[in-house]
Amino acid sequence: MSGKPRLEGWTCPAPLRNYPTIVLGHGSGGLMMADLIRHLFAPALGNELLDQMADSTVIDASSMLQAAGEGARLAFTTDSFVVSPIVFPGGDIGELAVNGTVNDLAMSGAEPLLLSAAFILEEGLPMETLARIAESVRRACEAAGVKVVAGDTKVVNRGHGDGVYISMAGLGVIPPAVRIAPGLGRPGDAVLVSGTMGDHGMAVLSRREGLAFETTLESDTAPLAGLVKAMIATSRDIHCLRDLTRGGLAAALNELAAASKVGVEFYEARVPVRPAVRAACEMLGFDPLYVANEGKLVCFVPEGEAKAVLIAMRAHPLGREAARIGTVVADHPERVVARTAIGGSRLVDLPAGELLPRIC
Amino acid sequence: MSGKPRLEGWTCPAPLRNYPTIVLGHGSGGLMMADLIRHLFAPALGNELLDQMADSTVIDASSMLQAAGEGARLAFTTDSFVVSPIVFPGGDIGELAVNGTVNDLAMSGAEPLLLSAAFILEEGLPMETLARIAESVRRACEAAGVKVVAGDTKVVNRGHGDGVYISMAGLGVIPPAVRIAPGLGRPGDAVLVSGTMGDHGMAVLSRREGLAFETTLESDTAPLAGLVKAMIATSRDIHCLRDLTRGGLAAALNELAAASKVGVEFYEARVPVRPAVRAACEMLGFDPLYVANEGKLVCFVPEGEAKAVLIAMRAHPLGREAARIGTVVADHPERVVARTAIGGSRLVDLPAGELLPRIC
Repeated sequence: MSGKPRLEGWTCPAPLRNYPTIVLGHGSGGLMMADLIRHLFAPALGNELLDQMADSTVIDASSMLQAAGEGARLAFTTDSFVVSPIVFPGGDIGELAVNGTVNDLAMSGAEPLLLSAAFILEEGLPMETLARIAESVRRACEAAGVKVVAGDTKVVNRGHGDGVYISMAGLGVIPPAVRIAPGLGRPGDAVLVSGTMGDHGMAVLSRREGLAFETTLESDTAPLAGLVKAMIATSRDIHCLRDLTRGGLAAALNELAAASKVGVEFYEARVPVRPAVRAACEMLGFDPLYVANEGKLVCFVPEGEAKAVLIAMRAHPLGREAARIGTVVADHPERVVARTAIGGSRLVDLPAGELLPRIC
Repeated sequence: MSGKPRLEGWTCPAPLRNYPTIVLGHGSGGLMMADLIRHLFAPALGNELLDQMADSTVIDASSMLQAAGEGARLAFTTDSFVVSPIVFPGGDIGELAVNGTVNDLAMSGAEPLLLSAAFILEEGLPMETLARIAESVRRACEAAGVKVVAGDTKVVNRGHGDGVYISMAGLGVIPPAVRIAPGLGRPGDAVLVSGTMGDHGMAVLSRREGLAFETTLESDTAPLAGLVKAMIATSRDIHCLRDLTRGGLAAALNELAAASKVGVEFYEARVPVRPAVRAACEMLGFDPLYVANEGKLVCFVPEGEAKAVLIAMRAHPLGREAARIGTVVADHPERVVARTAIGGSRLVDLPAGELLPRIC
């Protein structure tokens, strides 16, 4: 082609830039989206992989797997986060998304490594709020030792979202000898929990409903991969791990019991619950067994290894209040039974439906 | 523990099941969510990996990579889909999500293999609509040769969503010798497009605005991995690929020009546009260069290989109308220039902001 265009005379009007809030144009694949990525997301989350800015990110997965040794496998997970409100006592949706995704990887025994982050933004979201969330994602990634390596931004019309929804996917590497899965629980396994129940759910609820309690309720959102690593270092024979999010301990125990076709029995009095959470639950009619956590797990491990694993958990900052609460049994498969303080027993079923919606 | 509980006397009331629409309880991690997964998602999408039903899915990635040969790498991508309306002429949000994710993987030269799917559902969504979308995801997966291996479901309150948003992440394997990236374009490269421009955007717009045209506008949503595979089989020296979604051909060319620090010149008259799309664009004041496609790509390939690649594209059902439209130049780096039909030239800039929001 001949005849060069004279570019110097052309201008590139972009009257919609420099908005203090998100507008639809920020999701339209043009200059405004490029600005948003360059000035807001990249400074917080940029790294050599994300900076490829390609339709997909190229990852040297062979090296990742080889570093973990022959027989290492990949863990892959996804979660959306629609928590309301997006900022709550003890955290926000950005931190929650990173920790939630990291924890799902850790529950397979994986070392979490790479995340993708897809943001669905609502028109009208203050740019400052989004910047704070991006910063919160950055901090949480740093704390968990992971990187966001792929991303996406969409904008929906005012009234069709809720500020920010975040969908993450995660990749991690499972060390060779580790075999942890929901279906591997066996009668005789000890049932351990890593700490107090219900903190996240009651913290979100208290903020949402504008409730003021005398003591502050705070979310327990935290990345559990370090704790799991310490547990695995103690025993390569851990059978099951589950983080105790939606549906709380009750849902997790039921899911593990169903997948492993075993029963579970535990002592209600041995389940750690912070007094403030217990008080809030009593006042509002919630059962802490069913309330969501975002930094707690349950573990099935053979009786012979239980003590050592419990000691390892208690030595970790995120497992200081770890407790053995019960045992996996062959009786009543797929049923979870709590022994109550007064000597009775009750069936702890999967919750039916809504208990605390929009908790994560 | 002694004293077996007598389970036979207990009942498990679940009064909220069998709802014809989505309610908040379907996202709460309990029985209703389990029902939704068991009866709606699993029948459509189930496979041995998804059926692990663990917090994260364990993948034998070493075997996947080894099958492609020494030096194979992983491609990882994410995208959210918020298209409005969720069903449009030629497709729906489920098919769009699969194809969009598959295409992002293909643009790195990867063979798409595994997807994750995170659904954000709005309270009140008819169960039948969701079932149709799940079925559409299934069909699109089958067509593209991929599987959904990880999933998540959240429910947001009525008025805080838009029926369904879908976030997907994807994993694919890039064959050893393939090196395709936005920054690899070189002056002298031929610029090829795989077909007509603007079909998806105008199809969605026509449905959204209730416009009736004499001829039917249909989305071009399609998985491009097969086309890319045929192109790679012809030339291992393809420099850049980009699918032409938000911002259309104009945005893709600008992004590649910026990443490669090259200029692009193309003949406007050589860009294929269906007459019905051109007519609709003219009527509504859109430029087809800026309108989204969901089954089209642009390719930069060295001049010497261009003819063979173009022939390979035209031999593929999704590339029948492929065309060479221009050339990568050293002049005016990071600028895209169109030669017009009347012999002039114009700068084709990145669009500023909103052109067609909620197109994908």
